[in-house]
Amino acid sequence: MCIVGLGLIGGSMAIDLRKRKFTDHIIGVDNNKLHSETALKLGIADEVMNLKDGVKASDVVLIAVPVNAALKLLPEILDYVTNQVVTDVCSTKETIMKLVENHPKRSRFIGSHPMSGTENSGPWAAIPRLFDGKVAILCDIDKADEDTCNTIKEMYTALNMRLEYMNSKTHDVHVAYVSHISHICSYALAVTVLDKEKDEQQIFNLASGGFNSTARLAKSGAEMWTPIFTNNKDNVLEVMDTFIEKILAIRRCIKNERTDELTEFIEEANKIRRVLSK
Amino acid sequence: MCIVGLGLIGGSMAIDLRKRKFTDHIIGVDNNKLHSETALKLGIADEVMNLKDGVKASDVVLIAVPVNAALKLLPEILDYVTNQVVTDVCSTKETIMKLVENHPKRSRFIGSHPMSGTENSGPWAAIPRLFDGKVAILCDIDKADEDTCNTIKEMYTALNMRLEYMNSKTHDVHVAYVSHISHICSYALAVTVLDKEKDEQQIFNLASGGFNSTARLAKSGAEMWTPIFTNNKDNVLEVMDTFIEKILAIRRCIKNERTDELTEFIEEANKIRRVLSK
Repeated sequence: MCIVGLGLIGGSMAIDLRKRKFTDHIIGVDNNKLHSETALKLGIADEVMNLKDGVKASDVVLIAVPVNAALKLLPEILDYVTNQVVTDVCSTKETIMKLVENHPKRSRFIGSHPMSGTENSGPWAAIPRLFDGKVAILCDIDKADEDTCNTIKEMYTALNMRLEYMNSKTHDVHVAYVSHISHICSYALAVTVLDKEKDEQQIFNLASGGFNSTARLAKSGAEMWTPIFTNNKDNVLEVMDTFIEKILAIRRCIKNERTDELTEFIEEANKIRRVLSK
Repeated sequence: MCIVGLGLIGGSMAIDLRKRKFTDHIIGVDNNKLHSETALKLGIADEVMNLKDGVKASDVVLIAVPVNAALKLLPEILDYVTNQVVTDVCSTKETIMKLVENHPKRSRFIGSHPMSGTENSGPWAAIPRLFDGKVAILCDIDKADEDTCNTIKEMYTALNMRLEYMNSKTHDVHVAYVSHISHICSYALAVTVLDKEKDEQQIFNLASGGFNSTARLAKSGAEMWTPIFTNNKDNVLEVMDTFIEKILAIRRCIKNERTDELTEFIEEANKIRRVLSK
Protein backbone atom coordinates (compact mmCIF):
# COMPACT_ATOMS: atom_id res chain seq x y z
CA MET A 1 0.00 0.00 0.00
CA CYS A 2 0.95 3.66 -0.34
CA ILE A 3 0.76 6.15 2.52
CA VAL A 4 0.78 9.80 1.47
CA GLY A 5 1.85 11.83 4.50
CA LEU A 6 4.20 10.15 6.97
CA GLY A 7 3.19 12.00 10.12
CA LEU A 8 1.49 10.99 13.37
CA ILE A 9 -1.58 9.46 11.71
CA GLY A 10 0.01 7.95 8.60
CA GLY A 11 2.94 6.65 10.66
CA SER A 12 0.81 5.18 13.43
CA MET A 13 -1.47 3.47 10.91
CA ALA A 14 1.60 2.08 9.14
CA ILE A 15 2.91 0.51 12.34
CA ASP A 16 -0.28 -1.41 13.13
CA LEU A 17 -1.32 -2.22 9.55
CA ARG A 18 2.03 -3.90 9.00
CA LYS A 19 2.09 -5.66 12.37
CA ARG A 20 -1.45 -6.94 11.85
CA LYS A 21 -0.69 -8.09 8.30
CA PHE A 22 -3.10 -5.81 6.43
CA THR A 23 -0.05 -5.01 4.30
CA ASP A 24 3.50 -6.30 3.98
CA HIS A 25 4.94 -3.45 1.94
CA ILE A 26 4.50 0.26 2.55
CA ILE A 27 5.45 2.89 0.00
CA GLY A 28 5.80 6.31 1.63
CA VAL A 29 5.15 9.63 -0.09
CA ASP A 30 5.96 12.90 1.65
CA ASN A 31 7.17 16.20 0.21
CA ASN A 32 9.00 16.84 3.47
CA LYS A 33 12.36 15.12 2.98
CA LEU A 34 13.10 14.96 6.70
CA HIS A 35 9.80 13.18 7.26
CA SER A 36 10.33 10.62 4.50
CA GLU A 37 13.93 9.92 5.53
CA THR A 38 12.86 9.53 9.16
CA ALA A 39 9.97 7.24 8.17
CA LEU A 40 12.46 5.00 6.33
CA LYS A 41 14.83 4.93 9.31
CA LEU A 42 11.99 4.16 11.74
CA GLY A 43 10.76 1.35 9.51
CA ILE A 44 7.42 3.09 8.95
CA ALA A 45 7.92 2.98 5.16
CA ASP A 46 9.84 0.34 3.16
CA GLU A 47 10.59 2.72 0.32
CA VAL A 48 9.85 6.29 -0.67
CA MET A 49 8.51 7.38 -4.05
CA ASN A 50 7.01 10.43 -5.70
CA LEU A 51 3.21 10.67 -5.69
CA LYS A 52 2.58 9.31 -9.18
CA ASP A 53 4.89 6.29 -8.86
CA GLY A 54 3.64 5.57 -5.34
CA VAL A 55 0.01 5.46 -6.45
CA LYS A 56 0.76 3.46 -9.60
CA ALA A 57 2.69 0.82 -7.60
CA SER A 58 -0.03 0.29 -4.93
CA ASP A 59 -3.36 -1.41 -4.37
CA VAL A 60 -4.48 0.87 -1.52
CA VAL A 61 -3.67 4.57 -1.15
CA LEU A 62 -4.05 6.24 2.24
CA ILE A 63 -3.97 10.05 2.27
CA ALA A 64 -2.88 11.25 5.72
CA VAL A 65 -2.11 14.95 5.25
CA PRO A 66 -3.84 18.12 6.53
CA VAL A 67 -7.16 18.78 4.77
CA ASN A 68 -5.88 21.72 2.69
CA ALA A 69 -3.10 19.50 1.30
CA ALA A 70 -5.54 16.62 0.75
CA LEU A 71 -7.75 18.95 -1.31
CA LYS A 72 -4.81 19.57 -3.62
CA LEU A 73 -3.57 15.98 -3.83
CA LEU A 74 -6.79 13.97 -4.08
CA PRO A 75 -7.82 14.93 -7.66
CA GLU A 76 -4.26 14.28 -8.84
CA ILE A 77 -4.22 10.91 -7.06
CA LEU A 78 -7.55 9.92 -8.62
CA ASP A 79 -6.13 10.88 -12.03
CA TYR A 80 -3.40 8.27 -11.53
CA VAL A 81 -5.80 5.58 -10.30
CA THR A 82 -6.59 2.57 -12.44
CA ASN A 83 -8.22 0.19 -9.98
CA GLN A 84 -6.67 1.27 -6.66
CA VAL A 85 -8.70 1.92 -3.53
CA VAL A 86 -8.18 5.41 -2.08
CA THR A 87 -9.13 6.88 1.29
CA ASP A 88 -8.26 10.01 3.22
CA VAL A 89 -8.30 10.48 7.00
CA CYS A 90 -9.16 14.19 7.25
CA SER A 91 -11.27 15.62 10.07
CA THR A 92 -13.62 17.49 7.70
CA LYS A 93 -15.30 15.67 4.88
CA GLU A 94 -17.75 17.84 2.95
CA THR A 95 -15.28 19.99 0.96
CA ILE A 96 -13.34 16.88 -0.02
CA MET A 97 -16.43 15.02 -1.17
CA LYS A 98 -17.69 17.96 -3.21
CA LEU A 99 -14.31 18.40 -4.88
CA VAL A 100 -14.29 14.90 -6.37
CA GLU A 101 -18.01 14.25 -6.86
CA ASN A 102 -17.72 14.29 -10.64
CA HIS A 103 -14.32 12.67 -10.96
CA PRO A 104 -14.45 9.59 -13.24
CA LYS A 105 -12.69 7.57 -10.53
CA ARG A 106 -14.97 8.81 -7.72
CA SER A 107 -16.13 5.28 -6.91
CA ARG A 108 -12.57 4.15 -6.09
CA PHE A 109 -12.50 6.68 -3.24
CA ILE A 110 -14.08 6.62 0.18
CA GLY A 111 -13.71 9.44 2.68
CA SER A 112 -12.94 8.29 6.21
CA HIS A 113 -12.13 9.78 9.59
CA PRO A 114 -10.39 7.70 12.22
CA MET A 115 -11.14 9.62 15.42
CA SER A 116 -7.94 9.35 17.35
CA GLY A 117 -4.73 11.28 17.68
CA THR A 118 -2.35 12.93 20.08
CA GLU A 119 -1.20 16.52 20.31
CA ASN A 120 2.13 15.56 18.68
CA SER A 121 3.08 15.41 15.01
CA GLY A 122 5.56 14.05 12.49
CA PRO A 123 6.84 10.47 12.02
CA TRP A 124 8.58 10.67 15.44
CA ALA A 125 5.13 10.90 17.04
CA ALA A 126 3.88 7.68 15.41
CA ILE A 127 2.90 5.07 18.01
CA PRO A 128 1.36 1.61 17.95
CA ARG A 129 -2.25 0.97 19.03
CA LEU A 130 -3.28 4.62 18.56
CA PHE A 131 -6.62 3.62 17.05
CA ASP A 132 -7.60 0.58 19.13
CA GLY A 133 -11.18 0.84 20.40
CA LYS A 134 -11.80 4.25 18.78
CA VAL A 135 -14.36 5.11 16.10
CA ALA A 136 -13.68 5.37 12.37
CA ILE A 137 -16.34 7.16 10.36
CA LEU A 138 -16.89 6.20 6.74
CA CYS A 139 -18.70 8.87 4.73
CA ASP A 140 -21.06 8.60 1.77
CA ILE A 141 -20.35 4.92 1.24
CA ASP A 142 -23.11 4.69 -1.39
CA LYS A 143 -20.84 6.67 -3.74
CA ALA A 144 -18.04 4.09 -3.58
CA ASP A 145 -17.68 0.67 -5.21
CA GLU A 146 -18.41 -2.31 -3.02
CA ASP A 147 -14.81 -3.54 -3.08
CA THR A 148 -13.60 -0.02 -2.20
CA CYS A 149 -15.83 -0.07 0.89
CA ASN A 150 -14.81 -3.58 1.84
CA THR A 151 -11.09 -2.88 1.61
CA ILE A 152 -11.33 0.22 3.77
CA LYS A 153 -13.57 -1.58 6.27
CA GLU A 154 -10.95 -4.32 6.47
CA MET A 155 -8.25 -1.71 7.02
CA TYR A 156 -10.05 -0.07 9.97
CA THR A 157 -11.02 -3.46 11.36
CA ALA A 158 -7.30 -4.35 11.35
CA LEU A 159 -6.78 -1.16 13.39
CA ASN A 160 -9.36 -2.45 15.92
CA MET A 161 -11.68 0.47 15.22
CA ARG A 162 -15.47 0.60 15.54
CA LEU A 163 -17.07 1.65 12.26
CA GLU A 164 -19.74 4.33 11.98
CA TYR A 165 -21.40 5.46 8.77
CA MET A 166 -22.78 8.88 7.93
CA ASN A 167 -23.00 11.37 5.13
CA SER A 168 -20.27 13.97 4.94
CA LYS A 169 -22.58 16.87 5.83
CA THR A 170 -23.74 15.20 9.05
CA HIS A 171 -20.17 14.21 9.83
CA ASP A 172 -18.99 17.81 9.67
CA VAL A 173 -21.77 19.01 11.99
CA HIS A 174 -21.04 16.34 14.59
CA VAL A 175 -17.27 16.86 14.64
CA ALA A 176 -17.75 20.62 15.07
CA TYR A 177 -19.48 19.74 18.37
CA VAL A 178 -17.43 16.88 19.68
CA SER A 179 -14.00 17.89 18.48
CA HIS A 180 -13.45 21.26 16.81
CA ILE A 181 -14.98 23.46 19.53
CA SER A 182 -12.91 21.62 22.16
CA HIS A 183 -9.74 22.61 20.33
CA ILE A 184 -10.86 26.22 19.97
CA CYS A 185 -11.62 26.41 23.71
CA SER A 186 -8.27 24.97 24.52
CA TYR A 187 -6.37 27.38 22.25
CA ALA A 188 -8.22 30.38 23.70
CA LEU A 189 -7.59 29.14 27.22
CA ALA A 190 -3.87 28.64 26.64
CA VAL A 191 -3.44 32.09 25.12
CA THR A 192 -5.48 33.67 27.93
CA VAL A 193 -3.28 32.14 30.59
CA LEU A 194 0.01 32.80 28.77
CA ASP A 195 -1.05 36.35 28.06
CA LYS A 196 -2.07 37.35 31.55
CA GLU A 197 -0.18 35.03 33.83
CA LYS A 198 3.27 36.39 33.08
CA ASP A 199 4.82 34.27 35.77
CA GLU A 200 5.28 30.99 33.88
CA GLN A 201 6.88 29.33 36.86
CA GLN A 202 3.63 29.85 38.74
CA ILE A 203 1.56 28.33 35.93
CA PHE A 204 3.92 25.38 36.02
CA ASN A 205 3.74 25.05 39.80
CA LEU A 206 0.01 25.47 40.10
CA ALA A 207 -1.40 23.89 36.96
CA SER A 208 -3.04 20.79 38.37
CA GLY A 209 -5.14 18.16 36.68
CA GLY A 210 -7.88 20.59 35.72
CA PHE A 211 -5.82 22.98 33.65
CA ASN A 212 -3.75 20.18 32.13
CA SER A 213 -6.89 18.50 31.00
CA THR A 214 -8.52 21.53 29.36
CA ALA A 215 -5.31 22.99 27.91
CA ARG A 216 -3.81 19.76 26.55
CA LEU A 217 -5.38 20.17 23.11
CA ALA A 218 -3.73 23.60 22.80
CA LYS A 219 -0.51 21.74 22.01
CA SER A 220 -1.98 20.62 18.66
CA GLY A 221 -0.31 22.06 15.56
CA ALA A 222 -1.62 24.80 13.26
CA GLU A 223 -0.63 22.88 10.14
CA MET A 224 -3.47 20.47 10.80
CA TRP A 225 -5.97 22.67 12.62
CA THR A 226 -6.06 25.94 10.66
CA PRO A 227 -7.42 24.18 7.54
CA ILE A 228 -9.89 22.15 9.62
CA PHE A 229 -11.44 25.31 11.04
CA THR A 230 -11.69 27.06 7.67
CA ASN A 231 -12.98 23.97 5.89
CA ASN A 232 -15.69 23.47 8.49
CA LYS A 233 -16.25 27.20 8.87
CA ASP A 234 -20.08 27.35 8.90
CA ASN A 235 -20.54 24.56 11.42
CA VAL A 236 -17.69 25.78 13.60
CA LEU A 237 -19.01 29.36 13.67
CA GLU A 238 -22.46 28.13 14.67
CA VAL A 239 -21.09 26.06 17.54
CA MET A 240 -18.83 28.94 18.61
CA ASP A 241 -21.82 31.29 18.76
CA THR A 242 -23.67 28.93 21.07
CA PHE A 243 -20.56 28.51 23.17
CA ILE A 244 -20.07 32.29 23.44
CA GLU A 245 -23.73 32.66 24.51
CA LYS A 246 -23.18 30.10 27.27
CA ILE A 247 -19.98 31.77 28.47
CA LEU A 248 -21.79 35.12 28.59
CA ALA A 249 -24.64 33.52 30.54
CA ILE A 250 -22.19 32.23 33.14
CA ARG A 251 -20.55 35.65 33.24
CA ARG A 252 -23.88 37.35 34.02
CA CYS A 253 -24.63 34.85 36.79
CA ILE A 254 -21.24 35.44 38.42
CA LYS A 255 -21.33 39.20 37.98
CA ASN A 256 -24.79 39.51 39.55
CA GLU A 257 -24.15 36.75 42.07
CA ARG A 258 -27.19 34.86 40.87
CA THR A 259 -26.13 31.70 42.65
CA ASP A 260 -29.33 29.72 42.01
CA GLU A 261 -29.08 30.28 38.28
CA LEU A 262 -25.38 29.46 38.30
CA THR A 263 -26.09 26.23 40.18
CA GLU A 264 -28.78 25.32 37.64
CA PHE A 265 -26.33 25.95 34.82
CA ILE A 266 -23.69 23.75 36.43
CA GLU A 267 -26.25 20.99 37.08
CA GLU A 268 -27.20 21.14 33.42
CA ALA A 269 -23.51 20.80 32.49
CA ASN A 270 -23.15 17.86 34.91
CA LYS A 271 -25.50 15.90 32.63
CA ILE A 272 -22.49 15.37 30.40
CA ARG A 273 -21.93 12.42 32.75
CA ARG A 274 -24.68 10.67 30.79
CA VAL A 275 -22.43 10.54 27.76
CA LEU A 276 -18.91 10.65 29.19
CA SER A 277 -18.43 7.41 31.01
CA LYS A 278 -15.17 8.19 32.74
CA MET B 1 -7.72 15.24 64.73
CA CYS B 2 -11.12 16.52 63.61
CA ILE B 3 -12.24 16.65 59.97
CA VAL B 4 -15.18 18.94 59.29
CA GLY B 5 -16.71 17.81 56.00
CA LEU B 6 -16.41 14.13 55.10
CA GLY B 7 -16.46 14.42 51.31
CA LEU B 8 -13.94 13.74 48.57
CA ILE B 9 -11.21 15.98 50.00
CA GLY B 10 -11.76 15.42 53.73
CA GLY B 11 -12.20 11.70 53.18
CA SER B 12 -9.15 11.30 50.93
CA MET B 13 -7.00 13.25 53.39
CA ALA B 14 -8.29 11.06 56.23
CA ILE B 15 -7.25 7.86 54.42
CA ASP B 16 -3.63 8.93 53.88
CA LEU B 17 -3.16 10.89 57.12
CA ARG B 18 -4.15 7.79 59.07
CA LYS B 19 -2.13 5.38 56.93
CA ARG B 20 0.93 7.60 57.17
CA LYS B 21 0.54 8.03 60.91
CA PHE B 22 -0.04 11.79 61.02
CA THR B 23 -3.04 10.86 63.19
CA ASP B 24 -4.38 7.71 64.82
CA HIS B 25 -7.85 8.99 65.66
CA ILE B 26 -10.20 10.90 63.38
CA ILE B 27 -13.32 12.65 64.63
CA GLY B 28 -15.72 13.37 61.81
CA VAL B 29 -18.16 16.30 61.68
CA ASP B 30 -20.72 16.55 58.90
CA ASN B 31 -24.25 17.95 58.96
CA ASN B 32 -25.18 15.47 56.25
CA LYS B 33 -26.12 12.32 58.17
CA LEU B 34 -25.67 10.05 55.16
CA HIS B 35 -22.12 11.38 54.75
CA SER B 36 -21.16 10.92 58.38
CA GLU B 37 -22.68 7.41 58.58
CA THR B 38 -20.92 6.43 55.37
CA ALA B 39 -17.62 7.85 56.61
CA LEU B 40 -17.93 5.70 59.73
CA LYS B 41 -18.72 2.57 57.70
CA LEU B 42 -15.82 3.23 55.32
CA GLY B 43 -13.45 3.74 58.24
CA ILE B 44 -12.74 7.32 57.22
CA ALA B 45 -13.82 8.57 60.68
CA ASP B 46 -13.51 6.71 63.98
CA GLU B 47 -16.37 8.59 65.57
CA VAL B 48 -18.77 11.37 64.70
CA MET B 49 -19.46 14.42 66.88
CA ASN B 50 -21.14 17.79 66.63
CA LEU B 51 -18.93 20.73 65.69
CA LYS B 52 -18.29 22.05 69.18
CA ASP B 53 -17.42 18.69 70.73
CA GLY B 54 -15.33 17.71 67.72
CA VAL B 55 -13.19 20.84 67.93
CA LYS B 56 -12.86 20.65 71.73
CA ALA B 57 -11.70 17.01 71.57
CA SER B 58 -9.00 17.59 68.91
CA ASP B 59 -5.50 18.96 68.41
CA VAL B 60 -5.87 19.68 64.69
CA VAL B 61 -9.07 20.77 62.90
CA LEU B 62 -9.33 20.39 59.13
CA ILE B 63 -12.20 22.22 57.42
CA ALA B 64 -13.04 20.50 54.14
CA VAL B 65 -16.37 21.98 53.09
CA PRO B 66 -17.37 24.29 50.19
CA VAL B 67 -16.15 27.86 50.68
CA ASN B 68 -19.59 29.30 51.49
CA ALA B 69 -20.00 26.75 54.30
CA ALA B 70 -16.44 27.37 55.50
CA LEU B 71 -17.21 31.10 55.79
CA LYS B 72 -20.04 30.24 58.19
CA LEU B 73 -18.19 27.60 60.21
CA LEU B 74 -14.72 29.10 60.61
CA PRO B 75 -15.56 31.93 63.08
CA GLU B 76 -17.57 29.49 65.18
CA ILE B 77 -14.72 26.97 65.14
CA LEU B 78 -12.21 29.64 66.18
CA ASP B 79 -14.57 30.57 69.03
CA TYR B 80 -14.23 27.00 70.37
CA VAL B 81 -10.45 26.92 69.94
CA THR B 82 -8.18 26.94 72.97
CA ASN B 83 -4.85 25.85 71.54
CA GLN B 84 -5.93 23.78 68.49
CA VAL B 85 -4.43 24.23 65.03
CA VAL B 86 -7.05 24.95 62.34
CA THR B 87 -6.81 24.92 58.56
CA ASP B 88 -9.27 24.97 55.66
CA VAL B 89 -8.77 23.57 52.17
CA CYS B 90 -10.93 25.95 50.13
CA SER B 91 -10.05 27.00 46.57
CA THR B 92 -10.46 30.72 47.28
CA LYS B 93 -8.67 32.34 50.18
CA GLU B 94 -9.16 36.09 50.36
CA THR B 95 -12.74 36.20 51.68
CA ILE B 96 -11.87 33.63 54.34
CA MET B 97 -8.79 35.51 55.49
CA LYS B 98 -10.64 38.81 55.67
CA LEU B 99 -13.44 37.26 57.69
CA VAL B 100 -11.18 36.16 60.55
CA GLU B 101 -8.46 38.81 60.44
CA ASN B 102 -9.50 40.28 63.77
CA HIS B 103 -10.51 37.08 65.52
CA PRO B 104 -8.62 36.63 68.83
CA LYS B 105 -7.63 33.12 67.75
CA ARG B 106 -6.51 34.19 64.26
CA SER B 107 -2.98 32.94 64.84
CA ARG B 108 -4.21 29.37 65.44
CA PHE B 109 -5.51 29.31 61.85
CA ILE B 110 -3.73 28.96 58.54
CA GLY B 111 -5.51 28.99 55.18
CA SER B 112 -4.38 26.28 52.81
CA HIS B 113 -5.27 24.92 49.39
CA PRO B 114 -4.24 21.41 48.40
CA MET B 115 -4.49 21.54 44.60
CA SER B 116 -5.89 18.17 43.75
CA GLY B 117 -9.27 16.59 43.33
CA THR B 118 -11.48 14.60 41.03
CA GLU B 119 -14.85 15.43 39.49
CA ASN B 120 -16.57 13.19 42.06
CA SER B 121 -17.85 14.04 45.53
CA GLY B 122 -18.96 12.65 48.88
CA PRO B 123 -17.21 10.12 51.15
CA TRP B 124 -17.71 7.39 48.47
CA ALA B 125 -15.35 9.36 46.21
CA ALA B 126 -12.52 9.39 48.78
CA ILE B 127 -9.40 7.66 47.47
CA PRO B 128 -5.86 7.09 48.72
CA ARG B 129 -2.88 8.99 47.26
CA LEU B 130 -5.05 11.78 45.81
CA PHE B 131 -2.52 14.43 46.85
CA ASP B 132 0.82 12.72 46.16
CA GLY B 133 3.14 14.95 44.14
CA LYS B 134 0.67 17.82 43.92
CA VAL B 135 1.05 21.37 45.29
CA ALA B 136 -0.39 22.63 48.57
CA ILE B 137 -0.48 26.40 48.94
CA LEU B 138 -0.21 27.94 52.40
CA CYS B 139 -1.49 31.51 52.56
CA ASP B 140 -0.45 34.44 54.74
CA ILE B 141 1.73 32.28 57.00
CA ASP B 142 3.06 35.39 58.77
CA LYS B 143 -0.35 35.73 60.46
CA ALA B 144 -0.15 32.29 62.07
CA ASP B 145 1.80 31.03 65.07
CA GLU B 146 4.95 29.10 64.33
CA ASP B 147 3.58 25.83 65.72
CA THR B 148 0.39 26.31 63.66
CA CYS B 149 2.53 26.57 60.50
CA ASN B 150 4.69 23.65 61.45
CA THR B 151 1.76 21.33 62.15
CA ILE B 152 0.08 22.12 58.84
CA LYS B 153 3.39 21.76 56.96
CA GLU B 154 3.80 18.34 58.59
CA MET B 155 0.29 17.41 57.56
CA TYR B 156 0.85 18.27 53.88
CA THR B 157 4.28 16.66 53.94
CA ALA B 158 2.60 13.46 55.16
CA LEU B 159 0.33 13.77 52.10
CA ASN B 160 3.47 13.92 49.90
CA MET B 161 2.62 17.42 48.69
CA ARG B 162 4.99 20.15 47.53
CA LEU B 163 4.49 23.33 49.57
CA GLU B 164 4.13 26.79 48.03
CA TYR B 165 3.64 30.02 49.97
CA MET B 166 1.79 33.13 48.88
CA ASN B 167 -0.55 35.78 50.16
CA SER B 168 -4.24 35.13 49.77
CA LYS B 169 -4.75 37.90 47.21
CA THR B 170 -2.08 36.52 44.88
CA HIS B 171 -3.42 33.01 45.43
CA ASP B 172 -6.88 34.00 44.24
CA VAL B 173 -5.52 35.66 41.08
CA HIS B 174 -3.42 32.61 40.17
CA VAL B 175 -6.18 30.05 40.71
CA ALA B 176 -8.58 32.10 38.59
CA TYR B 177 -6.11 31.48 35.72
CA VAL B 178 -4.99 27.94 36.28
CA SER B 179 -8.17 26.43 37.65
CA HIS B 180 -11.38 28.45 37.72
CA ILE B 181 -11.47 29.48 34.05
CA SER B 182 -10.84 25.85 33.04
CA HIS B 183 -13.96 24.81 34.89
CA ILE B 184 -16.02 27.61 33.35
CA CYS B 185 -14.86 26.60 29.84
CA SER B 186 -15.72 23.04 30.52
CA TYR B 187 -19.20 23.83 31.85
CA ALA B 188 -19.95 26.07 28.86
CA LEU B 189 -18.66 23.43 26.47
CA ALA B 190 -20.77 20.66 28.02
CA VAL B 191 -23.94 22.75 27.91
CA THR B 192 -23.21 23.81 24.31
CA VAL B 193 -22.87 20.23 23.17
CA LEU B 194 -25.84 18.93 25.18
CA ASP B 195 -27.97 21.83 23.97
CA LYS B 196 -27.29 21.53 20.28
CA GLU B 197 -26.25 17.95 19.75
CA LYS B 198 -29.62 16.41 20.53
CA ASP B 199 -28.45 12.98 19.49
CA GLU B 200 -26.71 11.84 22.67
CA GLN B 201 -25.83 8.49 21.16
CA GLN B 202 -23.74 10.37 18.59
CA ILE B 203 -21.92 12.37 21.27
CA PHE B 204 -21.21 9.10 23.01
CA ASN B 205 -20.02 7.38 19.83
CA LEU B 206 -17.91 10.23 18.56
CA ALA B 207 -16.54 11.87 21.68
CA SER B 208 -12.90 10.91 21.47
CA GLY B 209 -9.98 11.91 23.64
CA GLY B 210 -10.26 15.60 22.80
CA PHE B 211 -13.79 16.18 24.01
CA ASN B 212 -13.36 13.90 27.01
CA SER B 213 -10.38 15.91 28.05
CA THR B 214 -11.96 19.35 27.78
CA ALA B 215 -15.39 18.34 29.10
CA ARG B 216 -14.22 16.21 32.04
CA LEU B 217 -14.30 19.12 34.51
CA ALA B 218 -17.96 19.74 33.62
CA LYS B 219 -18.78 16.78 35.83
CA SER B 220 -17.75 18.79 38.92
CA GLY B 221 -20.56 19.63 41.33
CA ALA B 222 -22.26 23.00 41.84
CA GLU B 223 -22.14 22.69 45.63
CA MET B 224 -18.41 23.31 45.51
CA TRP B 225 -18.08 25.46 42.39
CA THR B 226 -20.88 28.02 42.64
CA PRO B 227 -19.40 29.54 45.83
CA ILE B 228 -15.87 29.42 44.37
CA PHE B 229 -16.93 31.55 41.40
CA THR B 230 -18.81 34.10 43.50
CA ASN B 231 -16.08 34.30 46.13
CA ASN B 232 -13.44 34.91 43.49
CA LYS B 233 -15.77 37.03 41.39
CA ASP B 234 -13.47 39.93 40.45
CA ASN B 235 -10.55 37.76 39.38
CA VAL B 236 -12.77 35.29 37.58
CA LEU B 237 -14.59 38.03 35.64
CA GLU B 238 -11.28 39.53 34.56
CA VAL B 239 -9.97 36.20 33.27
CA MET B 240 -13.31 35.50 31.56
CA ASP B 241 -13.13 38.82 29.75
CA THR B 242 -9.70 38.00 28.39
CA PHE B 243 -10.89 34.54 27.42
CA ILE B 244 -13.96 35.96 25.62
CA GLU B 245 -11.68 38.39 23.72
CA LYS B 246 -9.51 35.48 22.57
CA ILE B 247 -12.52 33.40 21.49
CA LEU B 248 -13.85 36.37 19.51
CA ALA B 249 -10.42 36.84 17.91
CA ILE B 250 -10.43 33.20 16.75
CA ARG B 251 -14.01 33.65 15.51
CA ARG B 252 -13.00 36.64 13.36
CA CYS B 253 -10.06 34.72 11.88
CA ILE B 254 -12.27 31.78 10.95
CA LYS B 255 -15.12 33.93 9.65
CA ASN B 256 -12.82 35.96 7.40
CA GLU B 257 -10.61 32.98 6.57
CA ARG B 258 -7.54 34.83 7.77
CA THR B 259 -5.48 31.67 7.86
CA ASP B 260 -2.13 33.34 8.58
CA GLU B 261 -3.52 35.10 11.63
CA LEU B 262 -5.25 31.91 12.79
CA THR B 263 -1.98 30.00 12.43
CA GLU B 264 -0.16 32.67 14.43
CA PHE B 265 -2.79 32.40 17.16
CA ILE B 266 -2.47 28.63 17.32
CA GLU B 267 1.34 28.86 17.40
CA GLU B 268 1.02 31.27 20.31
CA ALA B 269 -1.26 28.77 22.09
CA ASN B 270 1.24 25.96 21.38
CA LYS B 271 3.68 27.75 23.69
CA ILE B 272 1.68 26.22 26.54
CA ARG B 273 4.03 23.29 25.93
CA ARG B 274 6.62 25.34 27.81
CA VAL B 275 4.63 24.93 30.99
CA LEU B 276 2.65 21.73 30.46
CA SER B 277 5.14 18.93 30.41
CA LYS B 278 2.87 16.12 29.28
